[in-house]
Amino acid sequence: MTDVPVGGDNYNELIGLELVEVSADRVTARLEVTPKLHQPYGIMHGGVYCSAVETVASVGGATWFSGRGVVVGVSNHTNFLRATREGVLTVVATPVHRGRTQQLWGVKITDEQDRLVASGEVRLANITDAAQIGG
Amino acid sequence: MTDVPVGGDNYNELIGLELVEVSADRVTARLEVTPKLHQPYGIMHGGVYCSAVETVASVGGATWFSGRGVVVGVSNHTNFLRATREGVLTVVATPVHRGRTQQLWGVKITDEQDRLVASGEVRLANITDAAQIGG
Amino acid sequence: MTDVPVGGDNYNELIGLELVEVSADRVTARLEVTPKLHQPYGIMHGGVYCSAVETVASVGGATWFSGRGVVVGVSNHTNFLRATREGVLTVVATPVHRGRTQQLWGVKITDEQDRLVASGEVRLANITDAAQIGG
Amino acid sequence: MTDVPVGGDNYNELIGLELVEVSADRVTARLEVTPKLHQPYGIMHGGVYCSAVETVASVGGATWFSGRGVVVGVSNHTNFLRATREGVLTVVATPVHRGRTQQLWGVKITDEQDRLVASGEVRLANITDAAQIGG
Repeated sequence: MTDVPVGGDNYNELIGLELVEVSADRVTARLEVTPKLHQPYGIMHGGVYCSAVETVASVGGATWFSGRGVVVGVSNHTNFLRATREGVLTVVATPVHRGRTQQLWGVKITDEQDRLVASGEVRLANITDAAQIGG
Repeated sequence: MTDVPVGGDNYNELIGLELVEVSADRVTARLEVTPKLHQPYGIMHGGVYCSAVETVASVGGATWFSGRGVVVGVSNHTNFLRATREGVLTVVATPVHRGRTQQLWGVKITDEQDRLVASGEVRLANITDAAQIGG
Repeated sequence: MTDVPVGGDNYNELIGLELVEVSADRVTARLEVTPKLHQPYGIMHGGVYCSAVETVASVGGATWFSGRGVVVGVSNHTNFLRATREGVLTVVATPVHRGRTQQLWGVKITDEQDRLVASGEVRLANITDAAQIGG
Repeated sequence: MTDVPVGGDNYNELIGLELVEVSADRVTARLEVTPKLHQPYGIMHGGVYCSAVETVASVGGATWFSGRGVVVGVSNHTNFLRATREGVLTVVATPVHRGRTQQLWGVKITDEQDRLVASGEVRLANITDAAQIGG
């Protein structure tokens, strides 16, 4: 099997998430808070934080598991600590646990003043049989 | 204060989430899985499930708390149970707990075959002072 | 392999959790709030709710997976909705998702007035190789 | 009001959790894995990890909020990363976010070989009106 994704990174492009640094030990991304990401109160929709958390954790887990298979998200737990209206956010994922069948990654999102605006955790399943994905 | 949001529902429009039914006891939405919502493996990005969970729970909580203030998301915990590539999903939120200062809503997402594809839970803070939002 | 536990149910005896009904679709237990379960404010320690949630979910998952292997807890997410000082609580687990490799069970804890005092969710891994446990 | 708890620390004594270091920035505890904490497979019951997580986070949050009121647990999310049968565990809590109305603390539990056996997160509500507790 190949563990190289073949599709485009459509959703991350849709929300404007840009990967800055990718390794098996740390993934960093950049996300600009723009009006298209707002919910009706004029602040960034909580789902965008979750999405950023999901992406960087998944990229980290996939990088670590590369050559053995792929990873799929099992659960996402994101805390919203500070509302944002604009500016550029920094999203950083580091591993909590990288096991044989599952991984757990922690993610911190900070604003331009280096204040923590969200934190999250993603559980990933290590999949060695690609036929299990999206079946 | 007013508790009526004044901005547009930009992010939900971006991902194509459409509210179908809104009450203080139940919120239902429709979400079509389209390629723009995919991650590189060609399945829907987990963050979109989280986003759908976040929206319907927040709309339910805001509807229940309407007239007293607004609600903001505190945390979102979403489980991914089945990958999807296409089709129309149904997203349903019901309250677990509606307290004086916080609410907890549970959300189920099902596909066209009525299979559970994701489940989540959102904690909301009831805010009576609008100045606290996005400060 | 055998999937029948051989040890005593020590910890559940320690906290006084008693199983009332056990099936692959639903597990019910009874827990009396006694002073030995209190934290210093004189209310039941949050960890006891988590423990009750963990037990009933695990028993349900183990019952469903019986004959194929055992289950081990992967994560526990418990919400504390109402403090309790005394009385008998009812703990009920039902399945959210029972998959090939993992299960997700939801748990509700109610008091004698049938008020929801805690709710939780446990993720379980289905283990077919007993050597993986407690290694 | 007083924010000094008056009851005994009954439940922590029951499970044998001993506080080692307490400050507003870090709490450390010691927990010995003994047979009374086992579930039927002969490994420590997951609820005990949750309980240890709950205690150290709560003590940290209460210490930080001391003089202004008390804290109560809102939710507990604990991941089980490695089963344990015996030995002494070290439990360390550090703050993720300490806000006006809520706090979020992260907890790591390691074994004698310094391996991570569990990690968790506790959300606490800051309560300035003691009458709200255990009502």
